[in-house]
Amino acid sequence: MSSNSFGNLFRITTWGESHGKAIGVIIDGCPAGLELSENDINTALAQRAPGKTPYTSPRKEKDIAEIYSGVFEGKTTGAPIAIIIMNQDTDSSRYEPIKHLLRPGHANYTYQKKYGCFDHRGGGRASGRETACRVAAGAVAGKLLACKGIQVVAYLKSIDTIEMDPVVKPRDDAGLVFCPDKDAADKMMRAINKAKAEGDSLGGVVEFIVHNVPAGLGDPVYEKLEANLARAMLSIPATKGFEIGEGFHAARMRGSQHNDLFTNDGHPTTSNHAGGTLGGITTGMPLIGRVAFKPTSSIKKPQATLDDQGNPQTLVLPEGSRHDPCVAIRAVPVVSAMCSLVLADALLMNQCATVEHLR
Amino acid sequence: MSSNSFGNLFRITTWGESHGKAIGVIIDGCPAGLELSENDINTALAQRAPGKTPYTSPRKEKDIAEIYSGVFEGKTTGAPIAIIIMNQDTDSSRYEPIKHLLRPGHANYTYQKKYGCFDHRGGGRASGRETACRVAAGAVAGKLLACKGIQVVAYLKSIDTIEMDPVVKPRDDAGLVFCPDKDAADKMMRAINKAKAEGDSLGGVVEFIVHNVPAGLGDPVYEKLEANLARAMLSIPATKGFEIGEGFHAARMRGSQHNDLFTNDGHPTTSNHAGGTLGGITTGMPLIGRVAFKPTSSIKKPQATLDDQGNPQTLVLPEGSRHDPCVAIRAVPVVSAMCSLVLADALLMNQCATVEHLR
Amino acid sequence: MSSNSFGNLFRITTWGESHGKAIGVIIDGCPAGLELSENDINTALAQRAPGKTPYTSPRKEKDIAEIYSGVFEGKTTGAPIAIIIMNQDTDSSRYEPIKHLLRPGHANYTYQKKYGCFDHRGGGRASGRETACRVAAGAVAGKLLACKGIQVVAYLKSIDTIEMDPVVKPRDDAGLVFCPDKDAADKMMRAINKAKAEGDSLGGVVEFIVHNVPAGLGDPVYEKLEANLARAMLSIPATKGFEIGEGFHAARMRGSQHNDLFTNDGHPTTSNHAGGTLGGITTGMPLIGRVAFKPTSSIKKPQATLDDQGNPQTLVLPEGSRHDPCVAIRAVPVVSAMCSLVLADALLMNQCATVEHLR
Amino acid sequence: MSSNSFGNLFRITTWGESHGKAIGVIIDGCPAGLELSENDINTALAQRAPGKTPYTSPRKEKDIAEIYSGVFEGKTTGAPIAIIIMNQDTDSSRYEPIKHLLRPGHANYTYQKKYGCFDHRGGGRASGRETACRVAAGAVAGKLLACKGIQVVAYLKSIDTIEMDPVVKPRDDAGLVFCPDKDAADKMMRAINKAKAEGDSLGGVVEFIVHNVPAGLGDPVYEKLEANLARAMLSIPATKGFEIGEGFHAARMRGSQHNDLFTNDGHPTTSNHAGGTLGGITTGMPLIGRVAFKPTSSIKKPQATLDDQGNPQTLVLPEGSRHDPCVAIRAVPVVSAMCSLVLADALLMNQCATVEHLR
Repeated sequence: MSSNSFGNLFRITTWGESHGKAIGVIIDGCPAGLELSENDINTALAQRAPGKTPYTSPRKEKDIAEIYSGVFEGKTTGAPIAIIIMNQDTDSSRYEPIKHLLRPGHANYTYQKKYGCFDHRGGGRASGRETACRVAAGAVAGKLLACKGIQVVAYLKSIDTIEMDPVVKPRDDAGLVFCPDKDAADKMMRAINKAKAEGDSLGGVVEFIVHNVPAGLGDPVYEKLEANLARAMLSIPATKGFEIGEGFHAARMRGSQHNDLFTNDGHPTTSNHAGGTLGGITTGMPLIGRVAFKPTSSIKKPQATLDDQGNPQTLVLPEGSRHDPCVAIRAVPVVSAMCSLVLADALLMNQCATVEHLR
Repeated sequence: MSSNSFGNLFRITTWGESHGKAIGVIIDGCPAGLELSENDINTALAQRAPGKTPYTSPRKEKDIAEIYSGVFEGKTTGAPIAIIIMNQDTDSSRYEPIKHLLRPGHANYTYQKKYGCFDHRGGGRASGRETACRVAAGAVAGKLLACKGIQVVAYLKSIDTIEMDPVVKPRDDAGLVFCPDKDAADKMMRAINKAKAEGDSLGGVVEFIVHNVPAGLGDPVYEKLEANLARAMLSIPATKGFEIGEGFHAARMRGSQHNDLFTNDGHPTTSNHAGGTLGGITTGMPLIGRVAFKPTSSIKKPQATLDDQGNPQTLVLPEGSRHDPCVAIRAVPVVSAMCSLVLADALLMNQCATVEHLR
Repeated sequence: MSSNSFGNLFRITTWGESHGKAIGVIIDGCPAGLELSENDINTALAQRAPGKTPYTSPRKEKDIAEIYSGVFEGKTTGAPIAIIIMNQDTDSSRYEPIKHLLRPGHANYTYQKKYGCFDHRGGGRASGRETACRVAAGAVAGKLLACKGIQVVAYLKSIDTIEMDPVVKPRDDAGLVFCPDKDAADKMMRAINKAKAEGDSLGGVVEFIVHNVPAGLGDPVYEKLEANLARAMLSIPATKGFEIGEGFHAARMRGSQHNDLFTNDGHPTTSNHAGGTLGGITTGMPLIGRVAFKPTSSIKKPQATLDDQGNPQTLVLPEGSRHDPCVAIRAVPVVSAMCSLVLADALLMNQCATVEHLR
Repeated sequence: MSSNSFGNLFRITTWGESHGKAIGVIIDGCPAGLELSENDINTALAQRAPGKTPYTSPRKEKDIAEIYSGVFEGKTTGAPIAIIIMNQDTDSSRYEPIKHLLRPGHANYTYQKKYGCFDHRGGGRASGRETACRVAAGAVAGKLLACKGIQVVAYLKSIDTIEMDPVVKPRDDAGLVFCPDKDAADKMMRAINKAKAEGDSLGGVVEFIVHNVPAGLGDPVYEKLEANLARAMLSIPATKGFEIGEGFHAARMRGSQHNDLFTNDGHPTTSNHAGGTLGGITTGMPLIGRVAFKPTSSIKKPQATLDDQGNPQTLVLPEGSRHDPCVAIRAVPVVSAMCSLVLADALLMNQCATVEHLR
């Protein structure tokens, strides 16, 4: 019941603040015998690295993960896998001038209310930096899924009102903004440049698709696959919504339109309005869903606020503050990682579904 | 890690199939000293009772909850509270003719794939009947919240494209379809009558608001309040999406629009785009969110399907089959109950936030 | 984290007070496809039934378990198995005269301190009656173990200073006091008769042996098999100690005596001082351990005590009070059940040990 | 359900192998506002340091703990506390000659059976080195307990047949073998010297006493305080038994002897045979119990064994192998730490016992 842990059998625990010595993640429950190297993890981390494109935060950090335990001679041993990423670019002096100000849209207010204290340097545990640990752990989960042929893909579906063309085939590794539709990506980049110039920020939607999901993953009633995906996604900072399959659009459909009909042509159903599950358990169709991200809360524009004594003040972010103009972009690999973590857990849970499969 | 349990400290475990002898719920972790009677629970159950209105399933069932343990002389004792609801209207003979058919949109296919068997009578554990246990447990959670002045309200926000007027004040106990906007409610009922006449079904959206939420509820990082709400809601049968605050609309806003500014006029912020949390912890503003429900999968219209041998068949529901034309209506008290359960758990978790508050 | 639950993947939750309407247990996580009938459970319950022999409590209760969910057409379905045992002999009027007295050795004092209330009728949740639910659940676990050929045996090893002859082969179903050594059993029965005549009670030690345990069960570091056995046993009312293998005697041995040497003659080791595990994981040798039970706290002899106002009083149990003269006797099937529950859980946990075994 | 985690609300997760880069522990759930420094932890670690006395392993390691997260300006913040101890003395070349041999009493056999691999360097996760993380976390738990005046004491009660005089007042910090009885300690040291000279090892018993425990800690039914203590202790390597209060001796007592009578003279009871709990909940009397340790498995004497191909071999530990002649000595601070961890968890759990105490 640790609030910094996620998953039941494939279980991660993350630690570290954005401006502490390091951040890290322990993966407990990864089966023995999985090939795993630091390179596997660092390849994934490079995807979400800040400063990689002009469209994300200019924080300069190499984000090199080291495996401290749980791997021996290139394979997992069944012992907990400790991954540590040293913090490097943590000069917090720029936060000094605003340390007593409430930052709109940020968690320093609620942390102060809950804990009676707040680490004003960066966002502490509420910082997006924590998500690097999710990406690292997601890389391990992804290797486990790959053993069974399961493949997770995530991409930026929209920024503001600019939507990817649904005809474009989704794929990973899709350029500077993770959007595989080149035309839409160009428009998105222009919109970001414009918002940045105005000292403002934009929201967006990330979509994920999982291919080759076997039928039977997910557990009734409260461990439904979509329930765990929803929790996973809403645990990512800046998220405001989750959909599976038709999502909110389903509320405007009729049963005769929404029901996916079963077929014996090799696929379970002729359509996939459900998004890959029925009753919380995978059907064997691709898993598909979306996550809404709010516009980044840190903006250059001055904002009216209070100081910690309750006096009205104006918040002006110091020169050199580093923030993503659209947090949805860098969230793409995080959504992918959370998908992998949920599926790896469901895969292990499914080992105990029937007596016939006990070894 | 029981998949039929929900919550950490205020923890429920539900059991029972739609056509078994009974269904029930164990509540473990309810603090001692809470006044509780069977009437408290039965009042809540009456809200979601089937057959109550022409707009829900005609299943006739009194749904009388009995408390079997955990209450002594009118108060909780700290022991687990066992609540049992006997099943009464469980003639499953009407399911016989279709027992070998896959039902589009239903979980019998996925349960069969996972467990190698399926209780064809009703929906087994996947049936909406399980949600009666959530409502019963939610009533207990609601009494705990009421001790602290917290009040949960839920209502039907839309059916198909018919939306409640945002000017109407949300309230509980709002007529036959749980929509407090009388005009919208009338339109909704007409739409349902029309869909029923066509042998079809409709989807809808349920909204919840929680008043008087103290600041500080919810735990970083993976026990964020909205993460647990998302999981709670997506564990309800037929749900396809969850939003908090502006939800998916936030993805089309700018930071300068979305940020709620802090104020010292008695409310934490001047607006509530966030929906009541920052960084997963309540701000003290009302908690507000929405849940999307797909149209009911069981429809009168004939549907192409397969039998369990993979042969093409046509599914025609037997005469007398009882199904909600719009499952979102009866889901309103379930959404309310899940809200109460998430908040009761967060309230207890918050007891351990600081050293100062240890007794 | 429910305090009325035990186990991770094969997880039970028990409920009910000794003088409530019923007691019950939910088993969540039992794999689908296990043959199970009410008879399986009632056969086990008959073993621990009160009133069965003159050497146990004369409480007259049929203890008939009913399965309310989770079984369909004679097999488990993967859904939670709800087992309910109605209470029948619950006339609590005999507790009226002593309702305000603290009972030495009983939990009413500590429950009052913790919860501010206490159900004075019988022992509430602290009553040995709760263990009937463990025996019921243990019967289900035992059937799962039997699929893999694992067989749990428990028996009364000693009462007071009367010890079973170590030469006698341990077996289940061993007469009125569950001791397979007939001579020792006779002496035990005489000692009990004598203690009863004096209004006093006796303690004892229960031993368990598990045959055909595969190597590899149990998980490092905090889920070591012996750690979970220890917790399981010390959760049984009236227990004061747990040993595995040589137990406390090991503290007086030398390494050269205690080490079990490996062999290739078909058994892992030539001796079994360890009691069947190394590093918390089973070796393949029989699992063997012991549990110490204190003498029953309820005795006929008058005892000095206090009332709930702190005034000195004398506790004299009312005529007709029913208590076991030696609680260790009826604990034998409970120890056996807890063993089965721990092993069933370890068996399921072991499904995820290596990548090679993922299905 | 992570097998490398312990505790519910005050929850630790340990990682690292004896010959890896480092070992570490994450503490999740420590309330905010607790004063904590690295010095608090290193003082505790110095107690169990190897090489400290001639009576423990000569492994030379400074064991310096660093706090990587969760503490800000000298106080805990509510965020997870990451503590890391770098490994320094990890030359594993001395294990090379015996890497293919099964070591009697060690876990390499069972790890191989379970995981299909084994880190032959040192004991991997089964090494006593993991217990340094428990001591580090126990120091934090101890500081939390100290806020409420609770004080844990542990000491070596016996080695082989040499027992501490029960008249001697137990205290911490009691010389080279942690035994506060100077005469007994002298005898113990002589016995150890003799066993070492013979290439053999000795077992022992560690006792703990906790003073100023408030009434009400511990939760029925499966979270009884003694159940969690039992699990905690049996999770320590080399343990074979656990007792609370009279322990196994209680099995030879009569009810009239064993029952502790209630009194109103300022203590709950006139005696403390129970060892501080009734029904799994603390009474307010000191908590007292014992843990049995087997003789160290690694001995200088040659032992018959097998290689990993099943061929008979003789195991002779290489020159320079470092092992404790009596593992019970260095286990004293570990027993103390586990006590603290169990109590800190119970203290937090108790925050939610009654409605009256909700803040």
